[in-house]
Amino acid sequence: MSEANITKSIEWREDHVRIIDQTYLPLRTVYCDIRDVGQMWDAIKKLKVRGAPAIGIAAAYGFYLGIKDLELDSFPSFIIEANRIGEYLASSRPTAVNLKWAIDRILNSINALKEKPIDEIKAEVLALAKIIHDEDKRICKAIGLNGQDIIPKKANILTHCNTGSLATGMYGTALSVIYHAHLAGKKIHVWVDETRPLLQGSRLTAWELQNAEIPMNLIVDSAAGHLMKSGKVDLVIAGTDRVAANGDTANKIGTYSLAVIAKENNIPFYIAAPLSSIDMSLNSGDEIPIEERDGKEITQIGTTKIAPPKIETFNPAFDVTPAKYITAFVTEKGIIKGDYSKELKKLFN
Amino acid sequence: MSEANITKSIEWREDHVRIIDQTYLPLRTVYCDIRDVGQMWDAIKKLKVRGAPAIGIAAAYGFYLGIKDLELDSFPSFIIEANRIGEYLASSRPTAVNLKWAIDRILNSINALKEKPIDEIKAEVLALAKIIHDEDKRICKAIGLNGQDIIPKKANILTHCNTGSLATGMYGTALSVIYHAHLAGKKIHVWVDETRPLLQGSRLTAWELQNAEIPMNLIVDSAAGHLMKSGKVDLVIAGTDRVAANGDTANKIGTYSLAVIAKENNIPFYIAAPLSSIDMSLNSGDEIPIEERDGKEITQIGTTKIAPPKIETFNPAFDVTPAKYITAFVTEKGIIKGDYSKELKKLFN
Repeated sequence: MSEANITKSIEWREDHVRIIDQTYLPLRTVYCDIRDVGQMWDAIKKLKVRGAPAIGIAAAYGFYLGIKDLELDSFPSFIIEANRIGEYLASSRPTAVNLKWAIDRILNSINALKEKPIDEIKAEVLALAKIIHDEDKRICKAIGLNGQDIIPKKANILTHCNTGSLATGMYGTALSVIYHAHLAGKKIHVWVDETRPLLQGSRLTAWELQNAEIPMNLIVDSAAGHLMKSGKVDLVIAGTDRVAANGDTANKIGTYSLAVIAKENNIPFYIAAPLSSIDMSLNSGDEIPIEERDGKEITQIGTTKIAPPKIETFNPAFDVTPAKYITAFVTEKGIIKGDYSKELKKLFN
Repeated sequence: MSEANITKSIEWREDHVRIIDQTYLPLRTVYCDIRDVGQMWDAIKKLKVRGAPAIGIAAAYGFYLGIKDLELDSFPSFIIEANRIGEYLASSRPTAVNLKWAIDRILNSINALKEKPIDEIKAEVLALAKIIHDEDKRICKAIGLNGQDIIPKKANILTHCNTGSLATGMYGTALSVIYHAHLAGKKIHVWVDETRPLLQGSRLTAWELQNAEIPMNLIVDSAAGHLMKSGKVDLVIAGTDRVAANGDTANKIGTYSLAVIAKENNIPFYIAAPLSSIDMSLNSGDEIPIEERDGKEITQIGTTKIAPPKIETFNPAFDVTPAKYITAFVTEKGIIKGDYSKELKKLFN
């Protein structure tokens, strides 16, 4: 396999953005060319592009598409329009932190350039969008390469949810470690948890690995324990939504269970975490709020209803894995082990 | 709630059998009246009736429906037809142990009655079918009542798969414990694992509990760990397909994971097991073969495809929970605790 087999969820192509329309996955691979900010708003809103870093990158390119044809010569008129575009893009997914972050970063840059000609500002915005994209790729690549220290030459790896190219600028986080193990010629095989309720494992991770021709088997989440007990898993690696200062880690529902079973079977359990997901303002996992989502995610798949009408559900989207179950964190600054309260702090010094 | 709210999956009604056609569950409750052996063959074949004990009972009644109108006066001709009917019924689900068991029991009984008039033999077969049904109900009821020792007056109970009325003569095994706790006026609430891949939890258990008006919430299997860690589960109770002489227990995939997580959180973990599922010929769980099933169960739900075409899967139907994770067994002869190698043997003395 070469890098060419690794999915690119988003690409700048001369004068427009090409994304994989993720709403068609995994049954069809449909690319979507985005040429104006309205199309990008729609793509983010309708989850054609998803995953926190990928959304930030999409918004940055979308911002440039929004300003590039503005025929305004004065900065005061230009910045009014630019602010409007920022607000518009931010409204596509109001709770997405990376979306807001990318838009603010671009607006700050524009304000810093206010003495420059408008055309130059426009060019700088495109340059910044590319930088935001490249930074994310670089971070993901560094995680993937740093992760090689924990991947043996031959390994059965179990992973959960989607932490891949589809969610980031490229490579992903936990999946980047897997991609780079494969690129390095290691003999790896991946057990992919389907990841109920939204099936990011079967819909996205399985699709990415299949594209990259990495040997894998899709399993139901409940089968992971049986595999670990049977000696068929050498390590578990997952991503994270948020890590607290003590190492407690929030991630997709089911991650905690995997960590407990891994520990019981003496299997190393790793979290791939970019520094941007480590939140030093939280002392422990107890401070991480757990989002509860619509029960329809449990009672219905596609058009198929799978539970009795009017059934009560409980649908937490995440769980928190206490630090003690985590063998190490893989970050863009290296592998973090030991006393996480100390070691994570060092990353930010 | 009264007993009237507890589902009856199969009932003898004067001259025919009424079953709940489980292929319509959970969206519609459709009863199906079965008046001849061909209809019963079809009902078993098409999983309208399912669950090991329920299949045995269905076959017994089906046998009677098959012989009742035979116009044969001599035993030699009658037994030829009876054997044919037995073979025919057995072919509906060739691997179902209870099916074979019920048919053999009836054929043995017929042979023992060979001096009697044919009409008397026919009446005895119906009586035996009712006995097989009643025996199963009695065993299930005893499990339910014995189980009350382990259910506090107020409890959040987590269960997996379907072990209820739909799979047995009535009440079920693990679900019988839950039904009888509710009948006894205990304040119970049930967390129902959806139980991927075949969703017996959401399709069957949730439906049964909803019918019986027992408070419950349906969850994805992966959420069980989070609930246990959050102090929201007081005990876990599951059924079993087979228990080895040392207490190792095979059950629906995912049971092992629940047991490990329960132990980690000091939550009692129980297995409801009729003596018929305890196999003293097996020394340990290592001797229990694990059935691997079609990957389509993972990649498709109803008509909705949820994974990429041609994806590799791994779909073990069961896992084995080592005895050390099991707090106690609930059987029709009482609660079994302690050294299972000793205590289980005593049940059969």
